[in-house]
Amino acid sequence: MQVYMASKAIVLVCDGMSDRRCSALGWLTPLQAAKPKSFDWIASRSECGLMDPISPGVPPGSDTAHLAILGYDPYKHYTGRGAFEALGAGIELEPNDVAFRCNLATISEDGTVVDRRAGRISNEDAETLSESLNGIRLVRNSDVSVLFKHTVEHRGVLVLRCEGLSRFVSDVDPHKIGVRFLHSRPLVDSPAAKKTADTLNEFVEVSRKVLLQHGVNKRRAKNGQPLANVVLPRGAGTLPMIEKLPAKFGVRAAVIAGGAVYKGVCKAAGFDVLEVKGATGTVDTDLDAKMRAAINAVKAYDLVFVHVKSTDVVSHDKNPVKKVEVISRINKAFSTVVSEVDLAETCMAITSDHTTPSEVGEHTGDPVPLALYAPGARYGNVERFDEISCASGTLGRIRGIDFMPTIMNYLGRVPMYGE
Amino acid sequence: MQVYMASKAIVLVCDGMSDRRCSALGWLTPLQAAKPKSFDWIASRSECGLMDPISPGVPPGSDTAHLAILGYDPYKHYTGRGAFEALGAGIELEPNDVAFRCNLATISEDGTVVDRRAGRISNEDAETLSESLNGIRLVRNSDVSVLFKHTVEHRGVLVLRCEGLSRFVSDVDPHKIGVRFLHSRPLVDSPAAKKTADTLNEFVEVSRKVLLQHGVNKRRAKNGQPLANVVLPRGAGTLPMIEKLPAKFGVRAAVIAGGAVYKGVCKAAGFDVLEVKGATGTVDTDLDAKMRAAINAVKAYDLVFVHVKSTDVVSHDKNPVKKVEVISRINKAFSTVVSEVDLAETCMAITSDHTTPSEVGEHTGDPVPLALYAPGARYGNVERFDEISCASGTLGRIRGIDFMPTIMNYLGRVPMYGE
Repeated sequence: MQVYMASKAIVLVCDGMSDRRCSALGWLTPLQAAKPKSFDWIASRSECGLMDPISPGVPPGSDTAHLAILGYDPYKHYTGRGAFEALGAGIELEPNDVAFRCNLATISEDGTVVDRRAGRISNEDAETLSESLNGIRLVRNSDVSVLFKHTVEHRGVLVLRCEGLSRFVSDVDPHKIGVRFLHSRPLVDSPAAKKTADTLNEFVEVSRKVLLQHGVNKRRAKNGQPLANVVLPRGAGTLPMIEKLPAKFGVRAAVIAGGAVYKGVCKAAGFDVLEVKGATGTVDTDLDAKMRAAINAVKAYDLVFVHVKSTDVVSHDKNPVKKVEVISRINKAFSTVVSEVDLAETCMAITSDHTTPSEVGEHTGDPVPLALYAPGARYGNVERFDEISCASGTLGRIRGIDFMPTIMNYLGRVPMYGE
Repeated sequence: MQVYMASKAIVLVCDGMSDRRCSALGWLTPLQAAKPKSFDWIASRSECGLMDPISPGVPPGSDTAHLAILGYDPYKHYTGRGAFEALGAGIELEPNDVAFRCNLATISEDGTVVDRRAGRISNEDAETLSESLNGIRLVRNSDVSVLFKHTVEHRGVLVLRCEGLSRFVSDVDPHKIGVRFLHSRPLVDSPAAKKTADTLNEFVEVSRKVLLQHGVNKRRAKNGQPLANVVLPRGAGTLPMIEKLPAKFGVRAAVIAGGAVYKGVCKAAGFDVLEVKGATGTVDTDLDAKMRAAINAVKAYDLVFVHVKSTDVVSHDKNPVKKVEVISRINKAFSTVVSEVDLAETCMAITSDHTTPSEVGEHTGDPVPLALYAPGARYGNVERFDEISCASGTLGRIRGIDFMPTIMNYLGRVPMYGE
């Protein structure tokens, strides 16, 4: 007898795809304007609804949104962004490590931040400079090991490794230009926080000297390019102590993503990170390669999590028209998944990690649309995948932390509570 | 002036009635296929919605589901199934007692479980054998009193009575055939758990001797029937310390059910258990007798809880077609309640304690449909009582622990919080 139960799941999360009605689109949302055929096809066979990644009205960060939709209460388990960046960059984080997201940036002689991205420095230059910072020796804090790793463009990760450090320190990055970069301060009154802030400040001092003398910067000066003469760390974080998702549900899980933080959250949750050539986490990412990778991955894994960043990028750029185009492109790439995957055994979810209204340009706390297809799923009358249509679906309105149990329930992977 | 406020409530819970779309039913759910007229009639005048008995995606057990829909957070108040079985069997449980659900079963000479139901032993044989186990003396644990009581068919309840026992012990029942029955082990490192496991193991040893020598088994051997030569206890539980529902809401409450565990949870919550002749908790239960009892009970009680088990039985048997028939039968019996009860003063709820998809055969974590009729209730446009129709009702999606306050609110029985 055939078992009418999915054994696999593909989850497509389009970052910040969820939007509001846009004046530039005749008061349609980008999803309504895009009319993405394969999304709509899935939605019409899905339980649809709205999801509050954290809770109604609360704008999630990229890290907390993903923690939540992987099933972890971010208010309990969030330990700062830095750790996810480090994990996503491929660093094997240890429990005592404190990690920071970093920018290579340009400051003037008096320390004023002139360009937070060092003139959109190339991957090559940033990589070379970053290598010169990895393993540098500190003097005041000689017991702390320094790991530094470049990720994408001006971005990198710093890890301070030593016992007795704390993530409760303030950022060096002032998050804007025209002001001096900051001294890190302890945010709690503890020796660990004091030592960490001091170590971070020493790292910034020492790294400035290394960067200034580096051949790459000398060449950049000669060419009239902005110098990458400072590292601006922010988002101190430590490894979250969470029960791994594969252990929790007895599944093999993999993630396909471009951005470090998404890989990092999934890695913290026990996912295998699949590296896909051309998956850059930018608008020019190779969507077909990612979807092809998903189709292959679902043969070996029970849960495949696909993250696409471009919808968020154009939202932050306040470009609703471009967002419609980006959605159409993702939809087209995703149609291959829909046509090639065995729908008799594969559960499919399409959603977003948060709303980024493209006429606002920032994350907001609106819920996101969600379509969940599974054999036997109690689909209703929703015909379209968008914020308004999904609201009348049979899923109603759920929270981010209920998303993963809802999918795993369709795979028969949630342990019964009680007898 | 007439007060348009219900003063009474009848709650009909059809166990595992909630389902998914079934291929055998042309991708309808059994409720959609059954088109139960009296359920639909109520739904069309009801606030309808979906309810997550525990939380989205989490498959509830029979015990935890009922705890939740009676208003008790199962994660806080669940203390094992055994206590509910004992209460449901009419045993007056004391706070120190540890109770177990038991099967009379057949084992081979080396202890391998051959039949977990002792050849579907008759009520008469099981009753007689059970009486011989009640009050048996233990030697190693002579301070522990043993209570044993037969419930239905091969089922019984064991209570160990003594100070200093614990419910944190493992099952003797291996839950499958072909393997040896288990020795109970302490699940926590405490003298109480050790003593309880040892007592339980001693009970199993001693009871084997009693059963083997019993006249009933000698006769069964002669007739070629499987011997009921072992007791397999499981689901250790203690009396939950919960505020009784009648005290909480100031109502008189009664339950009509066949199965012991349902009576037990209600009894723990302070309900009177009404014994109805012919209410067996099986597919052959006398539904008319139960509905007649409900009509009578609502004259004396404010809240009457009617539990029907047959929908779950056919779901575990993976028989969607039979499930449609069973639903139709319940619907027909329930029509008497709808026509005889005074709808100007009686609130009515129809729901399910959990979803048991009849093409899966196990409890799942899908929400259940819920229709709640009350004079003045804000019913919407739902015309049918099924999983898909109810999803678009005015109740939205609620949690099991909110169900009882929602009903009691219609009876004006929920104390105001604040001033």
